[in-house]
Amino acid sequence: MIFADLSISLEGFVAGPDPSNEHPLGIGGMQLHEWALAAHAWRAAHGREGGEKTVDSDVIGETIARTGAGVMGRKMYSGGSGDWASDPNPRGWWGDEPPFHHPVFVLTHHAREPLELTGTTFHFVTGGIDEALDRATEAAGGKDVQIHGGGEAVQQAIAAGRLDELNTHVAPVLLGRGFPLLGGSTGRLERTRVIESPSGVTHLRYRVLR
Amino acid sequence: MIFADLSISLEGFVAGPDPSNEHPLGIGGMQLHEWALAAHAWRAAHGREGGEKTVDSDVIGETIARTGAGVMGRKMYSGGSGDWASDPNPRGWWGDEPPFHHPVFVLTHHAREPLELTGTTFHFVTGGIDEALDRATEAAGGKDVQIHGGGEAVQQAIAAGRLDELNTHVAPVLLGRGFPLLGGSTGRLERTRVIESPSGVTHLRYRVLR
Repeated sequence: MIFADLSISLEGFVAGPDPSNEHPLGIGGMQLHEWALAAHAWRAAHGREGGEKTVDSDVIGETIARTGAGVMGRKMYSGGSGDWASDPNPRGWWGDEPPFHHPVFVLTHHAREPLELTGTTFHFVTGGIDEALDRATEAAGGKDVQIHGGGEAVQQAIAAGRLDELNTHVAPVLLGRGFPLLGGSTGRLERTRVIESPSGVTHLRYRVLR
Repeated sequence: MIFADLSISLEGFVAGPDPSNEHPLGIGGMQLHEWALAAHAWRAAHGREGGEKTVDSDVIGETIARTGAGVMGRKMYSGGSGDWASDPNPRGWWGDEPPFHHPVFVLTHHAREPLELTGTTFHFVTGGIDEALDRATEAAGGKDVQIHGGGEAVQQAIAAGRLDELNTHVAPVLLGRGFPLLGGSTGRLERTRVIESPSGVTHLRYRVLR
């Protein structure tokens, strides 16, 4: 099963307006992720202690447990910064211990050798979304494949008819302006789960209908 | 209590792209309202028989019962069509028996006499959102005031600090492109109710925090 997981504002924005070094997720965008940052399971995956063991944490723990491999767009890998084509070994912005703990397949136009870090190997795929999903599915060894983002990668998977499940985490906030969820994909969905967290976030799970 | 009620796609669009006479709610926009059109309470309010007596119908019935007066923007009143300024008596697109069954205060720049129709009187307010909400509150006689739309009117109410409650009905559909919910308002919300309907729509209720 191939799935995606996105935190959104009530208006469906995945990031606020005017992203910058000071506000990498746009103005107000961090509010979309407060629920995750406060959760025990998120902190544990990022090598931090503490955090709350709430239903939000359970949702994150479940996602981590089901995922055997990931796919991400090039901009999400590199954080949008750096001169990817001229740098022989760009490390992205994930540091030496990325939080994924599974192989991640990065969509790119520039072939390079895999980058092996603690717990995560990044593979660079030039053959497009289908090749990335095929390789991730094989690497996942029976577990699920998560499309980590950005929205463009998720959109490509929907357009290719490959996305099985879409999870949104609706934060109790209005950002006013921002970057829309998926921008461009159309289709019907079947809602398969609703979890209301005391944090105010609503976890909505949908099956993508083909 | 002043509230608004909006049906949205999972991406938060209140209408699809490229509205036209053929597609007044934009391409695919009618999908946002299928749940309401199928409901007994909606059909009864619109003088039609039949419909399903589901939780969707209960939600609509509750909204009708609580509402003593409404406020709407000029474009929602006139359907965006017609030459409002030059027509001495534009009837809007609501026909002789509007579905509201309560007084409705229309935001406009052109003063005119009230228009009394079966069950609904339209009042035309040139003093802006505060005057419209004050007059509607008085006319509601202790019941609630609904801002029927469009998004701009709701946004003005939020900006004026007058919106108490925001209800969204999240339809299980991706429209790809469209008109965003509220476009421009920022703020924190407190989720106060979640109802998952078998129709696939999720009814989310929020208190607007000031």
